[in-house]
Amino acid sequence: MATSSERRAVVLLSGGLDSSTALAATRAEGYHCYSMAVDYGQRHQAELEAAQRIARQLGAVEHRVMKIDLAGIGGSALTDRSIAVPEQPSPGIPVTYVPARNTIFLALALAWAEVLDADAIVIGVNAVDYSGYPDCRPEFIAAFAGMANLATRRAVLGQRIELKTPLIDLTKAQIVQWGTALGVDYALTVSCYQADLTGAACGRCDSCRLRAKGFSDAGLPDPTRYA
Amino acid sequence: MATSSERRAVVLLSGGLDSSTALAATRAEGYHCYSMAVDYGQRHQAELEAAQRIARQLGAVEHRVMKIDLAGIGGSALTDRSIAVPEQPSPGIPVTYVPARNTIFLALALAWAEVLDADAIVIGVNAVDYSGYPDCRPEFIAAFAGMANLATRRAVLGQRIELKTPLIDLTKAQIVQWGTALGVDYALTVSCYQADLTGAACGRCDSCRLRAKGFSDAGLPDPTRYA
Repeated sequence: MATSSERRAVVLLSGGLDSSTALAATRAEGYHCYSMAVDYGQRHQAELEAAQRIARQLGAVEHRVMKIDLAGIGGSALTDRSIAVPEQPSPGIPVTYVPARNTIFLALALAWAEVLDADAIVIGVNAVDYSGYPDCRPEFIAAFAGMANLATRRAVLGQRIELKTPLIDLTKAQIVQWGTALGVDYALTVSCYQADLTGAACGRCDSCRLRAKGFSDAGLPDPTRYA
Repeated sequence: MATSSERRAVVLLSGGLDSSTALAATRAEGYHCYSMAVDYGQRHQAELEAAQRIARQLGAVEHRVMKIDLAGIGGSALTDRSIAVPEQPSPGIPVTYVPARNTIFLALALAWAEVLDADAIVIGVNAVDYSGYPDCRPEFIAAFAGMANLATRRAVLGQRIELKTPLIDLTKAQIVQWGTALGVDYALTVSCYQADLTGAACGRCDSCRLRAKGFSDAGLPDPTRYA
């Protein structure tokens, strides 16, 4: 049980640029942070090791990895190796969208938040420089927050849980600038959808392109290690 | 992709009385049913085998078991063996409540529903003869449905998914009567929170008490096998 002076937050941490910045921002707000990564059968398993490094660097109280086989469900280039990761921008929702991924991640975070008696769940979604995923949109986030505040024992007791999205209105350049100011070591992070086992990035996928443009627009050196 | 003449539903199937009846009701409505059970570290693992038997008996097209370690998160008598399952009724939300369980189950069902292009997700929650869990209440279900219809690619394309709760307003006796009429073999189901490995029931936990009262009130023979 959190004491009144200790505010706790569960932070979804993929190991990428955005979620690492969200963790740093939440720490800077004074929260005790409990980071959660999800091993869902993603092809870029290197991000899971990145998440562990980042959690340590940024002082998470505890880092938890939840394992769930979304590859068995399929329907995404990130979990089905027979679907190629696109290396050119394409209109509409890209094939790298993973069905219901953020809904599942937030549901798992909600469970841990309830046990920790946490006041907040934090997710590093962004609706400016993003891939157009439906579950990164502000209206989805607002609906999940409403549902979460009906779902739990805590909700019945009238204690609210906040769903925080510190990056949602920022450009990638603004995110990089903020994180740099907060001391995030972006060399530790992995954003690439098809990173190799060492975490080296392809430089061509949507995630790599958005990330590189962020450093470039921010006028900051890009520490990404490319394959 | 479902053809226009084939309506698909993902049915959450625990292997207990309620979800088995919900599956039978959904089949009777003409849906092609895809049942999903979740191995979340529950102490009553026998329900998972029951779910498989029921899926077969009631003609599910496919039965999928998702594995997720909620025991690691804890906070419930159903996943933490150091917390006893109560054998007397108690006020408030019982310790058998599993944090965010239905939110997680519905999120997993949503992912599969999206890949299957299903029109509906079905959950056998009941808000009459139930244990008082927050995530069985109609207001929670309505909020989840609203969120689900913003979460997915399907949602962006303007195709709705329905969250069906065929049992929500029924008494346990009505559920048993309906399921019996639909041909559910309740001898195959396991409701007990502390069923042994063979599925034999304790007869004393909240779930056993609600189930036994259902058969009794319905004036139907109780096929439950007690330890």
